Amino acid sequence: MKEILTNIKLTLSYDGTNYHGFQRQKNALAIQEVIESCLSKIYNEEIRITASSRTDAGVHARGQTINYYPTFHNIPEKRIPYALNSVLPEDIRVLESEVVPIKFHSRHDAQSKVYSYTIDRGRFHSVFWRLYSYHMPFSLDIKAMQEGTQYLQGRHDLSSFCAAGSNVISKEREIKMAYWSEEGDLIRFYIEADGFLYNMIRIITGTLIEVGRQKIAPRRMLEILEARDRRLAGPTAPANGLCLEKVSY
Amino acid sequence: MKEILTNIKLTLSYDGTNYHGFQRQKNALAIQEVIESCLSKIYNEEIRITASSRTDAGVHARGQTINYYPTFHNIPEKRIPYALNSVLPEDIRVLESEVVPIKFHSRHDAQSKVYSYTIDRGRFHSVFWRLYSYHMPFSLDIKAMQEGTQYLQGRHDLSSFCAAGSNVISKEREIKMAYWSEEGDLIRFYIEADGFLYNMIRIITGTLIEVGRQKIAPRRMLEILEARDRRLAGPTAPANGLCLEKVSY
Repeated sequence: MKEILTNIKLTLSYDGTNYHGFQRQKNALAIQEVIESCLSKIYNEEIRITASSRTDAGVHARGQTINYYPTFHNIPEKRIPYALNSVLPEDIRVLESEVVPIKFHSRHDAQSKVYSYTIDRGRFHSVFWRLYSYHMPFSLDIKAMQEGTQYLQGRHDLSSFCAAGSNVISKEREIKMAYWSEEGDLIRFYIEADGFLYNMIRIITGTLIEVGRQKIAPRRMLEILEARDRRLAGPTAPANGLCLEKVSY
Repeated sequence: MKEILTNIKLTLSYDGTNYHGFQRQKNALAIQEVIESCLSKIYNEEIRITASSRTDAGVHARGQTINYYPTFHNIPEKRIPYALNSVLPEDIRVLESEVVPIKFHSRHDAQSKVYSYTIDRGRFHSVFWRLYSYHMPFSLDIKAMQEGTQYLQGRHDLSSFCAAGSNVISKEREIKMAYWSEEGDLIRFYIEADGFLYNMIRIITGTLIEVGRQKIAPRRMLEILEARDRRLAGPTAPANGLCLEKVSY
């Protein structure tokens, strides 16, 4: 077994459009594979990485974090982003690098994560945001959506907002922050939690869109939450509106 | 000769990344060809269009205008964007449609056009803006750039900011407005004129970047302008930062 002497944490941004999600898989190109192959090239040894989140196909990141253990720490810490970006494709960028304690684990040690979900409510889908937003050209009652969002704050069993087939033991998570912001035709949902269930943000967003379209009353969010029944929540919003913004340790 | 009964003006937005410019050409796909082919499909006759500007390869648009003459005005005016967007690729969107007088010509009748040029001054090129901005990770003195920009206002012979090989008769144009705006890592140059010479905005931007990098004093912009000599201006900034924002009639 190789002795671990150095642990390096990287912060990454990527456009997920051209990849089949983060996690390495057979028969499809994943972001993990591209990063591991580029790291292995610059370190001249096989490098495997661990990520804070295994984002799904089409999901983007502004602040994904990973860590890895090079045998020889022969690239100065601050030069790693430049070295790695020179071999990475342009849709993946390393923003920061840091030497961290050996026991640091990018997934297990994450205290909270912030995601955003972007909706384009313009009459036609913006050509510039088409890959980074969900097009919803109907009138949305943002005030009702903000109200419905408030019921999510705090620690809850979030089974109603978890895709079927997930086999995690506890579905309790703490939502630390959740709100909508408006920027012209774009509206953005920001949500911070100590962890997320499978498809949780996309189901919450899909449900809040129903609130915005006045198909569900804002207060109904509380009833859906308390029912712990996925069938009561709205549809799963598409992947390409979702973006991992920040991971805190 | 076909009798012209109807003249229709469209406002378009496009992501120019995947096209070899606006103007139809042999051996390369142009935006004009895609639009004409889609219009011919929905009208069931051959339609040719005239555009306000023949944007170069890689250049984008938020408000390009075109006009065309269908023999039968059989699609209700307000339905044209929906009909056309349903057959156009996602990187070209029709935003507005309007029946205009027969004599209206989208290029000859344009009174002024607004373009923007976007620079990403982040340490690494944003994955989300990589196709729509020029990456300039050096310190830029925006105040100096604003000052240099002021000398451009008004009517001038703009030969210093025109690519060699252009054979227009008069190089006099009126710059009605020009300024820089800051939005986080992005800085944007907005310029409105009654017309633009070949590569004019990209050469002006390239020169103002030299001002921002303190290689040229702001006041030097006036001397360059008055010299009417392309060799004194800075380099031509890359196409993908440029976007046609609006055409006024």
